[in-house]
Amino acid sequence: MSKTIHFGSILHGVGGTTDGWRHPEIDETASTNFDFYKTRAQLAEKGLFDFVFIADGLYISEKSIPHFLNRFEPITLLSSLAAVTENIGLVGTFSSTYTDPFTLARQLMSLDHLSQGRAGWNLVTSPQAGVAKNYNNRALPPHDERYKIAQEHLDVVRGLWRSWEAEAFPRNKATGEYFDPTKLHRLNYEGEYYQVAGPLNIGRSPQGEPLIFQAGSSDNGRAFAAGNAEAIFTHSSSLEETKAFYDDVKKRAQAAGKNPDHVKIYPGINPLVADSLEDAEAKYQEFASLIPIENAVRYLARYFDDYDFSGYDLDAPFPELGDIGKNAFRSTTDYIKQRAKEQKQTLRQVALEQAVPRPNFIGTATDVADEIQRWFEAEAIDGFIIAGDVPHSFERFVNEVIPILQERGIYRKAYEGQTLRENIGVPIVQ
Amino acid sequence: MSKTIHFGSILHGVGGTTDGWRHPEIDETASTNFDFYKTRAQLAEKGLFDFVFIADGLYISEKSIPHFLNRFEPITLLSSLAAVTENIGLVGTFSSTYTDPFTLARQLMSLDHLSQGRAGWNLVTSPQAGVAKNYNNRALPPHDERYKIAQEHLDVVRGLWRSWEAEAFPRNKATGEYFDPTKLHRLNYEGEYYQVAGPLNIGRSPQGEPLIFQAGSSDNGRAFAAGNAEAIFTHSSSLEETKAFYDDVKKRAQAAGKNPDHVKIYPGINPLVADSLEDAEAKYQEFASLIPIENAVRYLARYFDDYDFSGYDLDAPFPELGDIGKNAFRSTTDYIKQRAKEQKQTLRQVALEQAVPRPNFIGTATDVADEIQRWFEAEAIDGFIIAGDVPHSFERFVNEVIPILQERGIYRKAYEGQTLRENIGVPIVQ
Repeated sequence: MSKTIHFGSILHGVGGTTDGWRHPEIDETASTNFDFYKTRAQLAEKGLFDFVFIADGLYISEKSIPHFLNRFEPITLLSSLAAVTENIGLVGTFSSTYTDPFTLARQLMSLDHLSQGRAGWNLVTSPQAGVAKNYNNRALPPHDERYKIAQEHLDVVRGLWRSWEAEAFPRNKATGEYFDPTKLHRLNYEGEYYQVAGPLNIGRSPQGEPLIFQAGSSDNGRAFAAGNAEAIFTHSSSLEETKAFYDDVKKRAQAAGKNPDHVKIYPGINPLVADSLEDAEAKYQEFASLIPIENAVRYLARYFDDYDFSGYDLDAPFPELGDIGKNAFRSTTDYIKQRAKEQKQTLRQVALEQAVPRPNFIGTATDVADEIQRWFEAEAIDGFIIAGDVPHSFERFVNEVIPILQERGIYRKAYEGQTLRENIGVPIVQ
Repeated sequence: MSKTIHFGSILHGVGGTTDGWRHPEIDETASTNFDFYKTRAQLAEKGLFDFVFIADGLYISEKSIPHFLNRFEPITLLSSLAAVTENIGLVGTFSSTYTDPFTLARQLMSLDHLSQGRAGWNLVTSPQAGVAKNYNNRALPPHDERYKIAQEHLDVVRGLWRSWEAEAFPRNKATGEYFDPTKLHRLNYEGEYYQVAGPLNIGRSPQGEPLIFQAGSSDNGRAFAAGNAEAIFTHSSSLEETKAFYDDVKKRAQAAGKNPDHVKIYPGINPLVADSLEDAEAKYQEFASLIPIENAVRYLARYFDDYDFSGYDLDAPFPELGDIGKNAFRSTTDYIKQRAKEQKQTLRQVALEQAVPRPNFIGTATDVADEIQRWFEAEAIDGFIIAGDVPHSFERFVNEVIPILQERGIYRKAYEGQTLRENIGVPIVQ
């Protein structure tokens, strides 16, 4: 099989902006409207996407964007989507800091069975200090320690998933052998953070076990991802930066003894397909104009642990923030600081750029297909995770860009298999 | 609306026995086969049942019955069922001892939205000491303390569910008001066991919030249920005992300041509908004969915290066990001990009776309908939870008994509403 490009789709209700829900063509109830998610997931499946992806967080305040205030919880949403889709993978975001590994291992493996082998876990360490207030004041550990906890947590979860070998349940009515005791393994994990005996009360799924995603791009995040993840969700500021990230992670994976082809890299992009480049630009401007500057600044502040930017001049150079943001969304805040310096951006410019990023894949369907092909041929990516905040941009991507890529022979014309592992191209776990 | 009888259905894969899966007409893969659950849930919905009910546990050993070894996790299973059903309630069993209230509150409320107001929580305190081994050796607290923890846990969960008032999200595109801050309430709970600030990141559902079930029938369990639960799942040894339980709980509910009509009582029964009483008896005997006595004893041992019965004479009177079982499934073990004494049962008799209880609703469809009507008219119940371990017994119950009860005017001919609260007959939470 020659290499082809892959896509995932991030689904997030009224969207990732502060005010996009006010657009006349956006369903303002989308974040708790199952029909919205079902329609989007089925459209992504029509487009032969590898997976849908659900982001998540465990803490809100009055300053949170609308989508965060009132939305579905990922494991329940994905389990409902499992029943109305056939082939598409179902990836949810869950915290290694604020979940019990036994419970999470069960829920994900159960989803993997319900979906016939389509589940994935996007492992996050929870970047918001406020989360502790919802979890018995268990303080958010420092960034480095969060990754140590994450490693133990994941080791426990994978160990529990491997409680039963693949053929552990002969279910032989004649002999009465329901399970084969030689294929049952207790984990008996005794770590610094976790002590879990097992076994899990559910066996292997059609893909063996759920796929592991990771989204942190800090140094800790990259090291963790290279050693543990099977797919990575990252930024897409420019082809050059993404290519550097891709090469770095693939090298780290190899150094960790893994096959670099089995760590797939998916930058997130917001392609905007329209009748012409001018039409696309107009649609972007119309959408961006929905967002008042004060909301854009509030949105920016979340990455910096709700830092108060109100004393700063919007049109002065972006302020020097020192370590602020280091224990929150570290890779994002590092990126914002560096880019502001390089581009000599003002606070206003930084806030607007974060609040509603200008799409770097924009124009006619052919324009967007060309740019995707360029990144693909530069070996900067394995695939992209497609968001679609601007109304109709996702539908047009599936209906217009996908056929062009198929025509060019760089995109699948049918799913390779039933499971997420088969379709994304990593081995089934035996 | 005059009073009618109600039904729920407990769904449990290959069933609650040790060896029933060996029956030629039972799907031995049922415990992880979504089609099995979907078909059963849709059949229960065709029968206008109030809800399906998923039992659960968090610890297994080699001695567990087949269904416990390898089964779906409840929140994922119910979320999938939400997508393939329209009206039936979705009740899952979750532990107040081994879950984080913020996570559980979210998952249940999300299910309540996904199902348009059909979620229910069967609150259990986790009766098995072995569970601690899967949860960082957090020891199972004593029975009394488990109920104190349960009270705080439920207070937090309900408090989180009430983070947002019913009309908290005007989502006014013209004014930009997505939420009304006067309708947002932080919980700021500071208890002995839990400290949770909130708010929850999901608003009210069509039924306000999920329904609370409770299944413990010990003294602690009854007191807790009368003060907190909206529905109770209990035993059904005899009409007299059930009537006494019903009257006791309704009285306790009234004493706790609640409307006794809003605490619904559902004993579990295993009706067996056949062409004649003899035919039904033969079907029961055929099914019971699948279970060897050593498996029946092993099954019994689980209620008594895996007590070792191997040194006891099977045909001697049931042994005096003192406090063994008191910190496990207390109401069940108390019941077993008392019944063994009253009925002068041997260990063999007790084990076989627990492993595969003889149905007390058995015979032709008319026989079963008559017995149901008798219990209903004696005001011993609000409804029954129907299990169907013997093959075809559940299908025949829905297809043959339900029409007779409808004919007699004591069973609904259509659902009263869309939500579980409307159909079960308790108020929507405002």
